[in-house]
Amino acid sequence: MILRIDRLQTELPPPSDPDPAGAAVVQELLGGKFGEMSTFMNYTFQSFNFRFRQGARPFYDLVANIAAEEFGHIELVSTAINTMLTGAGEKGSLPKPADLLNPQHFAAGGAGTLVQDSNGKPWNGDYVTSTGDLVEDLTHNFFLETGARNGKLKVYEMVDHPAARALTGYLLVRGGVHQVAYARAVENLTGADLTKLFPAPRIPTEKIPECKPHIERGEHTKLYRFSPSDYLELAAVFNGTHPETGDELQVVDNPPEGVPPFDLPAQEGVFAPDYAPEEIAEIARKLRTAAGLPDEPTGIVANDTNGVISKVKEAVS
Amino acid sequence: MILRIDRLQTELPPPSDPDPAGAAVVQELLGGKFGEMSTFMNYTFQSFNFRFRQGARPFYDLVANIAAEEFGHIELVSTAINTMLTGAGEKGSLPKPADLLNPQHFAAGGAGTLVQDSNGKPWNGDYVTSTGDLVEDLTHNFFLETGARNGKLKVYEMVDHPAARALTGYLLVRGGVHQVAYARAVENLTGADLTKLFPAPRIPTEKIPECKPHIERGEHTKLYRFSPSDYLELAAVFNGTHPETGDELQVVDNPPEGVPPFDLPAQEGVFAPDYAPEEIAEIARKLRTAAGLPDEPTGIVANDTNGVISKVKEAVS
Amino acid sequence: MILRIDRLQTELPPPSDPDPAGAAVVQELLGGKFGEMSTFMNYTFQSFNFRFRQGARPFYDLVANIAAEEFGHIELVSTAINTMLTGAGEKGSLPKPADLLNPQHFAAGGAGTLVQDSNGKPWNGDYVTSTGDLVEDLTHNFFLETGARNGKLKVYEMVDHPAARALTGYLLVRGGVHQVAYARAVENLTGADLTKLFPAPRIPTEKIPECKPHIERGEHTKLYRFSPSDYLELAAVFNGTHPETGDELQVVDNPPEGVPPFDLPAQEGVFAPDYAPEEIAEIARKLRTAAGLPDEPTGIVANDTNGVISKVKEAVS
Amino acid sequence: MILRIDRLQTELPPPSDPDPAGAAVVQELLGGKFGEMSTFMNYTFQSFNFRFRQGARPFYDLVANIAAEEFGHIELVSTAINTMLTGAGEKGSLPKPADLLNPQHFAAGGAGTLVQDSNGKPWNGDYVTSTGDLVEDLTHNFFLETGARNGKLKVYEMVDHPAARALTGYLLVRGGVHQVAYARAVENLTGADLTKLFPAPRIPTEKIPECKPHIERGEHTKLYRFSPSDYLELAAVFNGTHPETGDELQVVDNPPEGVPPFDLPAQEGVFAPDYAPEEIAEIARKLRTAAGLPDEPTGIVANDTNGVISKVKEAVS
Amino acid sequence: MILRIDRLQTELPPPSDPDPAGAAVVQELLGGKFGEMSTFMNYTFQSFNFRFRQGARPFYDLVANIAAEEFGHIELVSTAINTMLTGAGEKGSLPKPADLLNPQHFAAGGAGTLVQDSNGKPWNGDYVTSTGDLVEDLTHNFFLETGARNGKLKVYEMVDHPAARALTGYLLVRGGVHQVAYARAVENLTGADLTKLFPAPRIPTEKIPECKPHIERGEHTKLYRFSPSDYLELAAVFNGTHPETGDELQVVDNPPEGVPPFDLPAQEGVFAPDYAPEEIAEIARKLRTAAGLPDEPTGIVANDTNGVISKVKEAVS
Amino acid sequence: MILRIDRLQTELPPPSDPDPAGAAVVQELLGGKFGEMSTFMNYTFQSFNFRFRQGARPFYDLVANIAAEEFGHIELVSTAINTMLTGAGEKGSLPKPADLLNPQHFAAGGAGTLVQDSNGKPWNGDYVTSTGDLVEDLTHNFFLETGARNGKLKVYEMVDHPAARALTGYLLVRGGVHQVAYARAVENLTGADLTKLFPAPRIPTEKIPECKPHIERGEHTKLYRFSPSDYLELAAVFNGTHPETGDELQVVDNPPEGVPPFDLPAQEGVFAPDYAPEEIAEIARKLRTAAGLPDEPTGIVANDTNGVISKVKEAVS
Repeated sequence: MILRIDRLQTELPPPSDPDPAGAAVVQELLGGKFGEMSTFMNYTFQSFNFRFRQGARPFYDLVANIAAEEFGHIELVSTAINTMLTGAGEKGSLPKPADLLNPQHFAAGGAGTLVQDSNGKPWNGDYVTSTGDLVEDLTHNFFLETGARNGKLKVYEMVDHPAARALTGYLLVRGGVHQVAYARAVENLTGADLTKLFPAPRIPTEKIPECKPHIERGEHTKLYRFSPSDYLELAAVFNGTHPETGDELQVVDNPPEGVPPFDLPAQEGVFAPDYAPEEIAEIARKLRTAAGLPDEPTGIVANDTNGVISKVKEAVS
Repeated sequence: MILRIDRLQTELPPPSDPDPAGAAVVQELLGGKFGEMSTFMNYTFQSFNFRFRQGARPFYDLVANIAAEEFGHIELVSTAINTMLTGAGEKGSLPKPADLLNPQHFAAGGAGTLVQDSNGKPWNGDYVTSTGDLVEDLTHNFFLETGARNGKLKVYEMVDHPAARALTGYLLVRGGVHQVAYARAVENLTGADLTKLFPAPRIPTEKIPECKPHIERGEHTKLYRFSPSDYLELAAVFNGTHPETGDELQVVDNPPEGVPPFDLPAQEGVFAPDYAPEEIAEIARKLRTAAGLPDEPTGIVANDTNGVISKVKEAVS
Repeated sequence: MILRIDRLQTELPPPSDPDPAGAAVVQELLGGKFGEMSTFMNYTFQSFNFRFRQGARPFYDLVANIAAEEFGHIELVSTAINTMLTGAGEKGSLPKPADLLNPQHFAAGGAGTLVQDSNGKPWNGDYVTSTGDLVEDLTHNFFLETGARNGKLKVYEMVDHPAARALTGYLLVRGGVHQVAYARAVENLTGADLTKLFPAPRIPTEKIPECKPHIERGEHTKLYRFSPSDYLELAAVFNGTHPETGDELQVVDNPPEGVPPFDLPAQEGVFAPDYAPEEIAEIARKLRTAAGLPDEPTGIVANDTNGVISKVKEAVS
Repeated sequence: MILRIDRLQTELPPPSDPDPAGAAVVQELLGGKFGEMSTFMNYTFQSFNFRFRQGARPFYDLVANIAAEEFGHIELVSTAINTMLTGAGEKGSLPKPADLLNPQHFAAGGAGTLVQDSNGKPWNGDYVTSTGDLVEDLTHNFFLETGARNGKLKVYEMVDHPAARALTGYLLVRGGVHQVAYARAVENLTGADLTKLFPAPRIPTEKIPECKPHIERGEHTKLYRFSPSDYLELAAVFNGTHPETGDELQVVDNPPEGVPPFDLPAQEGVFAPDYAPEEIAEIARKLRTAAGLPDEPTGIVANDTNGVISKVKEAVS
Repeated sequence: MILRIDRLQTELPPPSDPDPAGAAVVQELLGGKFGEMSTFMNYTFQSFNFRFRQGARPFYDLVANIAAEEFGHIELVSTAINTMLTGAGEKGSLPKPADLLNPQHFAAGGAGTLVQDSNGKPWNGDYVTSTGDLVEDLTHNFFLETGARNGKLKVYEMVDHPAARALTGYLLVRGGVHQVAYARAVENLTGADLTKLFPAPRIPTEKIPECKPHIERGEHTKLYRFSPSDYLELAAVFNGTHPETGDELQVVDNPPEGVPPFDLPAQEGVFAPDYAPEEIAEIARKLRTAAGLPDEPTGIVANDTNGVISKVKEAVS
Repeated sequence: MILRIDRLQTELPPPSDPDPAGAAVVQELLGGKFGEMSTFMNYTFQSFNFRFRQGARPFYDLVANIAAEEFGHIELVSTAINTMLTGAGEKGSLPKPADLLNPQHFAAGGAGTLVQDSNGKPWNGDYVTSTGDLVEDLTHNFFLETGARNGKLKVYEMVDHPAARALTGYLLVRGGVHQVAYARAVENLTGADLTKLFPAPRIPTEKIPECKPHIERGEHTKLYRFSPSDYLELAAVFNGTHPETGDELQVVDNPPEGVPPFDLPAQEGVFAPDYAPEEIAEIARKLRTAAGLPDEPTGIVANDTNGVISKVKEAVS
């Protein structure tokens, strides 16, 4: 089972100019064959299906733990897409259809992420490979991360919106850690040294401006343990030096601190969360009072100050 | 982001007689339109896409938190399926094709769960509804839980394997809590009293033998808060009495204690995790030693005792 | 727009021994590429998309009118499937999963038809060809009917349940009329004589016992006009003699008389329409009274006599 | 079975400026998860699969009858799309690919509607929910109508072509009637008052200019009986007052009068219905004569006057 | 089995101005229902599944042999798409998302063809009809070629890029030969004269400028035998005169000579084949040397001259 | 382009006892994610999309040439399936539906292969990965072959029909060659030694009885050049020793000799190729005569002797 923490693994910029066509391209990183739904679901179901766990414990721990990090990645990609769509759903100023790539962002969603790729094709369970064969599944995972890295690099090139660039900058660094982790796992089981394939594709991560700050903080060397209690054997696999930088790999015994999310404003042109959001806020306030909760919302968001619900919209206008 | 805890929300029986055709039917609860992938992903993406969170905080907290519980449900359904497939993947005694409903359990997976429904159709992102309209999404969620309850009741009737019965017994109780939670949310926003629809379908949960022990422990009244820090406003929505039993609804400030999973044995007939799993165990042991970790695996599983890796298979033979 | 008449175009036998595996095969005639959903939807959308209708009126009338008949065919196939599933959804005696081909008949439906083919794959809009080119669409329709005839003949061979045989017997005769109609249309526009392809496939309809009574009633020569007011130019295309029998083709100025449907009994094992259907009947009775309607249901069904609702189940037990 | 009437349920404007990108968005109302194919097919198959009809007659009549109205809605949406595409398929002036959202309107169709959603994804049978459980299916239908209303409102906001606005104006009113009908049905069976959710989404129908004339004619209160002979028990469910306006609900004993469709002109750039449509008209005329039918086409269309086939194109040029 | 020859069946122009939106439309001819993947795979699997081959030898030879030509057609369509995408994948100057129809050309591929239609929907095996009934399959093939011709004509109208026009010009002529071949086959088996449907659609091939040179070379009359040894009975079916031109049909005892392909330059903005292609060329050179192969590449391409690898990019810049 | 040779790459046994359920499982090797359609189409489209071919010639030659061999593999898998279905389509003795896994083998096909996986899901273009990045595509191909080998091993375990065993025995050996080839390619470009992963999965090929004769003939060391003229640089990549046996790898300058296919008999119960195949044979004979071809069929099949068409059926009865 999981516990959820209402923070993002890294900071993304607040809404600026909307970019719905760019957001449609970023969907590739969410619901594409090599998107984060695929990494999340592959490792999750491989961990569920993992037989002989005690015997293969370090490998089980590795797969199960990386799965947990990937949840944070579908969250980040969605946040970037939603940020890029913000402002495009304003009452009276929806984008012209011919300027869109994915009209369902507005016709089905409320200026919100869809579980689709950049062509509007829904993600599906066929993208999950879980053969049960440990070496094969780990080799698959290494290749999946390679495909994912290719996709991130290409979306980086195609979309210049700040949210897309910040997103890909972070994911390239973290995805690189997973490539290393699976390469080490395969090496330990077979002797094959997949780190000779790095960087794959052959674009050095450190040359990408948006990756640099993360590398400087050592994010490229850390495997976080996303559990209060379990997956204690990561270090049995994830050790040695980073194939690109030579830095020592390290297991960090808790998740990254992260940041609170930006509370994205209502988009009344698509009724999200309503035609008249203030009425919902009023109901919420009454419910809190009735339940003996604080008057003000207890959630922590990046753009919050005391009593500012009514000002959320101003923050991005 | 999430933290992962390597425990199941409830106990399921260990492997007994394999039932691959029954396991194929249980897939409906995993990857069907009304299966747990759908509940997990609907609430997860609705929470990602939630705009004006501070204003609508109690509702955001509700959706985001139930999403977290649903991860545990895809885990439980997978565990049940894998339990039912155990023994059917033994070397030299694979089931006859004509006795199967879903041959990919063996031809693609390693006697393992697929991200598919009972007809072998992959789950897909089209099953996610996230319109952004709060009342609509909550109404949808209520209906989704109703459809899910129907599916669980039907699978209960169709499959009599102990793992399937234990699974549906638990999920019926917990799904009922989610029906109540979404009904309360809709009522708070609109005044419509959906609890008059309970039980929906009209089979009283308490009459199902496998549900009884959970009801006796009060599982039908508890909304667990699946977060060490967040989603503090659940009680603003989830309160009052249970529409079927009249018991007081309660928010519980942490996840259920749960139980360690059973370490399902290797299925060498389908190479899961390998043709010769002991060699993997040997490698794992060496890696642990090299990393300064304990000699014995650190993971906690239901069927573990000291030094028993080699005995895992005996436990179910 | 349409008017609906609550009668079947032909009589099908009442439920007898359930045959869920056979019913799964019959789904091919409902949701397969060459099934009745395809014929219904191809002609329907071709008629919607038909440009220059006045100029090409006889052809528009033909396509639009045959579309209307096809609605009756999806109704008939569904009725046959539901008949074959009746008795398999009884409380406490659901079929064993290994005996099923399509578990969703029970796990998703209430012993009811699905919009799927015989492999459980949903029908989809890709099966509709509507190019706008009149000759091409008509040629397509001729070929579609040929594929449909092949499917009916094969299902006839595969499934020996009386409902399946009665169904295919009727549909083979009526589908043959549509083959003739489209052949005539193509001939009129191009001179190509497609009737030389008859019978296609080359199994003479008259040799099939279940077809014989329909042929004896002349059903193979009649094109019914399914409209109280429109599609008056059918005879401009549908005329001459039948390519197999030499009988004169005729346009009949109204739909076939048909028969009332059998009121299929509740299947309480899958909660259709409920766990305790009598309570619904009681509510219905009160609503009728309150609305000034007769005490007894006004609908006409094949197995109805005064005050017999409570006896419906007996009729098939 | 059905009878077909060659009239539209409401008037739509004739072709004006083509708007292929807008037409691609309107496809969401045809083939989207919450589009009219979904409402039509859900109710149709629920009526086919309805067990214990006599016992639950008022509810059967309701579902079966609304299904019949929905056919008219797929017809209307298709008409709107085709109207918006008219002029974009002219010989020598096809739209530039980069201005399109759905190139198959021209590359596969003849400037004609596709059985797809706004992302070009085909409608599929998975969108049909027919569980057999009466309360569940009715609750589903209520939610389906709510999702459909959301879609219509969003397409209204996104597309300003007169045909799209006229279409959504009418469908919003009629869809509202279906919401009411299913809400009443659920209330009658369970006591739950879903009308408190109205309007859902919370945009009052009467504030939309294109809805007003329909409301003024009372279209929001009428449930038409779409049958010459059947579905006589609608009034047992559909009664009381409209939740938004307080007007008395009424069952009308026949379909709306409707209007003749506009005969959309040929689009020779995509060969619909041909490169040289006049030749088809000439053949049609001869066939009519040979069959003893009138010289002029007998069909009734909005833009027809005596002998004007040759002038159809002028009407929109 | 097959042998492969590294030449194109006809010449296509070298890259000029990139046209990614046009390329997305051309995808319809690759992966659409009536695209070349469909013709290739239909005939291929029909030939694999062909029973009683000796008895029906001339028909088997026809289907198997045309299948072989179709491989060359998926190659040609891909070449045209890749040509149109060349230049759009240059480092630093990728197209703006809003100008694209299919972003996966760059986000998933390396400025390369996808196995999709013009809406980005993947080709799938459902597009293959192989009933086993010889007359039906041949009739299907005739209709498939008709649909394919419609698609080619429409893409010709929609896209004016020289590569698209050259492509469709050639394919229209060759597809016409296949229409004739299948028409003859059907006629021989049934007497039905499908050649009366020619041209279908009714646009005379010879009026299309890009078709003319091929017709002048007699390409419309030749059925090539794509085998060094087999399919010797083509002439038993493919004989007589061409239905449009009256020219004598002829079987040619080998494949067309064809032309070497243009070596499309690297697109470094999407890492195809790499960020720094020269390094790959250097490795290749060394491998050749080590293997005792010539220093210079042995492949024959249209734009090759001695020692010019480094100049490939200049050729199109 | 390609030339086609009407021979199989290896011998498969003639029809014996039909095994339709087993045949449905073998479909996984045809249309599954890791089936032969995937290998064939991945390499084919990668070769079409290959940029900078002259610079990377040895790698282009490798991919393009292996693609050609894979055509022979879809042919072999289809042959095995058709062989296993032979006898199950006999007039009057079709299998009972409950004994089938894939009813479309008979309801749609003529006891013939479908382009589907073992769950009846159509193969689709999403299974093709062609990123343009050479190292990534080659790594992908290595992994794809690994997944394919897993599938073959599992089908080998699941299905004991002689045709399935002969098929997998051969494909395991040939697929192993492709694994080696791609491993060498990756090593040459990056230095990573993937041969340490062999055998992958870790079941030694030589231990499988049906593989042995192929290994004894050295089939595991040979890369055939499937072209009369091209792909001359294979040896630049495919050289050194086999990672399992240490035998020298070799490029063979033409395709394997292969064997003539068995002419599978008509299955009249599903009208393949007709209800009365002899009539087709009679027509064929006349056409041959008219065209000046030999009296007897010219095709070479395994079960042919002079004038034996009429005896084909006897051969397997």
